[in-house]
Amino acid sequence: MDTIDSETIQASETGSLIASSKVEGTRVFDAAGSKLGTVRNFMVDKRSGQVAYVVISTGGFLGLGQAYHPLPWSALRYEDGKGGYVVEVASDMLSGGPSFRPDTAPIFDDAYGARIDEYYRPPAGTISL
Amino acid sequence: MDTIDSETIQASETGSLIASSKVEGTRVFDAAGSKLGTVRNFMVDKRSGQVAYVVISTGGFLGLGQAYHPLPWSALRYEDGKGGYVVEVASDMLSGGPSFRPDTAPIFDDAYGARIDEYYRPPAGTISL
Repeated sequence: MDTIDSETIQASETGSLIASSKVEGTRVFDAAGSKLGTVRNFMVDKRSGQVAYVVISTGGFLGLGQAYHPLPWSALRYEDGKGGYVVEVASDMLSGGPSFRPDTAPIFDDAYGARIDEYYRPPAGTISL
Repeated sequence: MDTIDSETIQASETGSLIASSKVEGTRVFDAAGSKLGTVRNFMVDKRSGQVAYVVISTGGFLGLGQAYHPLPWSALRYEDGKGGYVVEVASDMLSGGPSFRPDTAPIFDDAYGARIDEYYRPPAGTISL
């Protein structure tokens, strides 16, 4: 088929770029392909423009049991085929890590960031793919 | 005063980080301090997590005359004192650059990105501060 519906080409997403406003709700999967949750938002370094943390929303039906889990950006990779992010983190590791409830908010300072980085740091000796 | 209202400390913004969901609407000023517009959204590289372009919304009252202007991230710097971004771009340079209307959408591919980068590239011989 040579026809391309140009109406479907959006400025909100291209092959390599995605609009911040479209990030919210993007699905996150574990390595086995199970859905862990969705992206709530990104924490962006105001000066460098680098996304530092991705806050993943898990659980919750009508807000029950919903939790937010910040992960280092480097723990996620985008997979076109899945249309979402994949993390090498199992569900129980996610639930055991730093998290907060919708009605609370951590002080997202350097110490909190270091806690996140430390928790998700690959064990020494492993090779990052 | 030693009292700190901890309720005002939000996870959506800290000294160096800002939530993507809070970026929309952040004000953008020119070097002289005049307000150029507000941030509509960011275009983020899905793989690296680097913010590639910042789309600035200018003009518009009830949608009249509103235009979106993508700028390279490197053209912006965040100023705490102003609570917003400052660009070394005058209003007429912004209006003469790549832009689109709310009812249209460019194909945000590499060629379009190169056009933006080229337009806002500092002249050779200047020193970037």
